[in-house]
Amino acid sequence: MSLAKAGVACLTILLAACSTNAQVSAPHSPPVPTLDDMRTVSPALAHNTETTLLGEVWKRPGLTPRDRSLVTLAVLISKQQTVELAYHLNLALDNGVKPSEISEAINHLAFYTGWGNATATILITKDVFEKRDIKQDQLPPVSPPLLPIDQASENVRTAYVDKNVGPVSPGLVHYTSASLFHDLWLRPDLAPRDRSMITVSALIATGQVAQLKAHLTRAMDNGLTQAQASEMLTQLAFYTGWPNVFTAVPVFNEVFTSRLKS
Amino acid sequence: MSLAKAGVACLTILLAACSTNAQVSAPHSPPVPTLDDMRTVSPALAHNTETTLLGEVWKRPGLTPRDRSLVTLAVLISKQQTVELAYHLNLALDNGVKPSEISEAINHLAFYTGWGNATATILITKDVFEKRDIKQDQLPPVSPPLLPIDQASENVRTAYVDKNVGPVSPGLVHYTSASLFHDLWLRPDLAPRDRSMITVSALIATGQVAQLKAHLTRAMDNGLTQAQASEMLTQLAFYTGWPNVFTAVPVFNEVFTSRLKS
Amino acid sequence: MSLAKAGVACLTILLAACSTNAQVSAPHSPPVPTLDDMRTVSPALAHNTETTLLGEVWKRPGLTPRDRSLVTLAVLISKQQTVELAYHLNLALDNGVKPSEISEAINHLAFYTGWGNATATILITKDVFEKRDIKQDQLPPVSPPLLPIDQASENVRTAYVDKNVGPVSPGLVHYTSASLFHDLWLRPDLAPRDRSMITVSALIATGQVAQLKAHLTRAMDNGLTQAQASEMLTQLAFYTGWPNVFTAVPVFNEVFTSRLKS
Repeated sequence: MSLAKAGVACLTILLAACSTNAQVSAPHSPPVPTLDDMRTVSPALAHNTETTLLGEVWKRPGLTPRDRSLVTLAVLISKQQTVELAYHLNLALDNGVKPSEISEAINHLAFYTGWGNATATILITKDVFEKRDIKQDQLPPVSPPLLPIDQASENVRTAYVDKNVGPVSPGLVHYTSASLFHDLWLRPDLAPRDRSMITVSALIATGQVAQLKAHLTRAMDNGLTQAQASEMLTQLAFYTGWPNVFTAVPVFNEVFTSRLKS
Repeated sequence: MSLAKAGVACLTILLAACSTNAQVSAPHSPPVPTLDDMRTVSPALAHNTETTLLGEVWKRPGLTPRDRSLVTLAVLISKQQTVELAYHLNLALDNGVKPSEISEAINHLAFYTGWGNATATILITKDVFEKRDIKQDQLPPVSPPLLPIDQASENVRTAYVDKNVGPVSPGLVHYTSASLFHDLWLRPDLAPRDRSMITVSALIATGQVAQLKAHLTRAMDNGLTQAQASEMLTQLAFYTGWPNVFTAVPVFNEVFTSRLKS
Repeated sequence: MSLAKAGVACLTILLAACSTNAQVSAPHSPPVPTLDDMRTVSPALAHNTETTLLGEVWKRPGLTPRDRSLVTLAVLISKQQTVELAYHLNLALDNGVKPSEISEAINHLAFYTGWGNATATILITKDVFEKRDIKQDQLPPVSPPLLPIDQASENVRTAYVDKNVGPVSPGLVHYTSASLFHDLWLRPDLAPRDRSMITVSALIATGQVAQLKAHLTRAMDNGLTQAQASEMLTQLAFYTGWPNVFTAVPVFNEVFTSRLKS
């Protein structure tokens, strides 16, 4: 009987070991390092994270914590930085980003940074949504009533695309209208201004400077103020790295200057 | 005895728990989200994946499913999008891409997008190959008989590299010949046209526009038609994201136009 | 009693199975593929890794193994290539890179390639440090005495940033001084020349060519020789992929030429 008892005792220990393992290696989300983990590698990085980044930059005026969360999520998704994703999804929800907006942001960034980046967020976001009891009825439906299209701006866009992309790739012209400008951008659960804000963030994060002027202009047409755009660069410096932001500065300067004149 | 029985019963449950855990967190491949997983995050993204992307884009004429698989794998490897990799390796094999071609594509993209991206594919591809019973004898050997070199084109290339890279980095000049153009590009298990197709895809995926003109020209010299190149852009828009493709369009336009004239 | 014995026997097997599983799917570090794993996917890639890359490139004169390790780590961190990270952290330590230098490099690259890339290294580096018994007292403190600033070069930098970034983003101007040039670059546990070397490597790895001229110039001012910079390109070709390096060559050429003249 003592052997049996030993067996059960072992079992209990083992069960604990296995369930700990199961918890730690939860298949859906990679483990998120804590500030204490960071301190075992770089005390300075932990300090900068706590003091400068979370304690200072996130609290600066000029851009709300909610907007900073959208900008940051756009960077993480664009650069497929899944290690911090669960943390920032939770922070975004705490900062007032709605589940429906996160849902739309992921769908939006599939088109703007590639399908695989959106797919890489799914199991992590699913976990976060489950833990916060976010249900299907809080997510935007497949086919909501769309926002009205701005026909004047759409005419300018199609003229440009027809002329420049038409001779090269008719398929690209088709889906640019069908999937993006006649569908994605008109979906109501993420405001055009917010779609622009995450698109601009994604362009900076992925170094796609050639598309930046058009999208920053659209962002400001959609209501992003110059003060907000300016402060986005401060937030983005930390999350995309300084070089990507410095490369974007001349384009921001050009757009800001040209809008002052007009 | 009842304790012992309880112990065994517990063991059975525990064994199941442990083996489930082992299965779910299979170390080699990250879990692949299903369309149902996607629906818990973004019903629209699931719908777009099923209807537009898999149901429509992949079936467009102009580029075969086999070529679309090579293009898509090149993007996933270039952007290290490992979450979708097992799914697309299987789809590629179903679409007629040979194991030997996948093997060569990974080796090729080590040189064109960095060693670490190739390394990141190994355990996932190993899993897929094992499950499909793909054995060593279906893989290209280390040193197969090489394809003949096109000496005229090689003379142009070496003249360019000697002049432009020679004064900057003799080591780079050496390995560009020794590892790439006198070895990699001549390996017979991936056709030059297919090597070009995945190289062009990788350049677009990583935003390396400065190298695109030379490689698209080489691709078309190697047999890629304008219709195929054009349709690659449609496929790539979804997998690399729209901005990368729009940045590539002017280069495609330039190459298409200059070949019409000559 | 035999059941109990069977239970214990099972337990032992199970414990082994669980602990194997725990080891393989160690939550902190992704499994590192071996050369044998590579051979099951691409015998040529395994051969190239063993013979050309590890056997030849790493042993070339012009750049020490220690410097090659810093360059390679900078690429892995910039491209978030975590699969090879544990291997290269160990190789770096074997090659004479100090734990304090690795610590500082991660902190440095948080600013130069984005916070999420630094965060993604933490649990893997923590594991490597633990296994090698590297303790807190070997890591740089949060606030060490800083190196003296070079006021002449700092005046040039602030004049440039004030003029070009000032009108666009005052926040960015502030943190460029406060966090980078009055703090990070003056931290003593990674020499300015080494900070420059990993910054240049990160810029090439992420395709940030627009910032390359200024940082290569600074690198050479900080003591990086032309022979070392030239050989960095050979190392980087393999780890970032050929296209990124070819895009960097004209900038290297320009900086090398202008320094010869002056």
